Amino acid sequence: MIPHIIKLPKFLDDRGNLSFIEEHNHIPFKIERAYWIYDVPGGERRGGHAYSNLQEFIVALSGSFDVILHDGNEELRFSLNRSYYGLYVPPMIWREIDNFSTNALSLILADDKYDESAYIRDFNEFKKIKNAG
Amino acid sequence: MIPHIIKLPKFLDDRGNLSFIEEHNHIPFKIERAYWIYDVPGGERRGGHAYSNLQEFIVALSGSFDVILHDGNEELRFSLNRSYYGLYVPPMIWREIDNFSTNALSLILADDKYDESAYIRDFNEFKKIKNAG
Repeated sequence: MIPHIIKLPKFLDDRGNLSFIEEHNHIPFKIERAYWIYDVPGGERRGGHAYSNLQEFIVALSGSFDVILHDGNEELRFSLNRSYYGLYVPPMIWREIDNFSTNALSLILADDKYDESAYIRDFNEFKKIKNAG
Repeated sequence: MIPHIIKLPKFLDDRGNLSFIEEHNHIPFKIERAYWIYDVPGGERRGGHAYSNLQEFIVALSGSFDVILHDGNEELRFSLNRSYYGLYVPPMIWREIDNFSTNALSLILADDKYDESAYIRDFNEFKKIKNAG
């Protein structure tokens, strides 16, 4: 599977809107972990890693930011700024997040627990593994 | 298990803070669904239902709100206003959310898919089932 935007259900209501995501339904994996990044100074940059075997789904719950992906050959940039869609990122894709707006809030759902050994933190090593695969 | 506040890990970082939650680790259930409520007008009120068999975990990812729970006998009020703790709500607990701040954002993790038949929407019926059980 390749990285792509997935639109989520949105229930409009005068008392507030609601969006939801179910594992193996809106996203093609099981949710084992959720994490969120907050209090990000505007304009900040994060990331610079790939996961050997982890799938993720990234949503801009508040504000906006850009996710820059690299598959070993080319770079793709996705701008996220809505609570009702997100970006599916398969394993072995290099990712960075930049261009955070002030008060941006990113929610990430992942299909596995945190495991430092699943991280690839060197871009050249990533490209070597990717292009050998 | 009774309703209680669960503190989550918080990684402080100049580029933004991060909190996370793993199923069967920080919360005593499996994450099957995530939903979020946004664009809530300040002061608004939501909810007024119980679930026959659903566990949830509620976090104020942005802003603040109060969760009012009722176990059939007494009412408990929890004020949520931080990204690094949340409220565990077991099945068969009546809940309402009120006192939303402007721009409040609530994230809810649930251990089952959406199922309208799991809802109890009448408070008197809830009390009857609860106190018969």
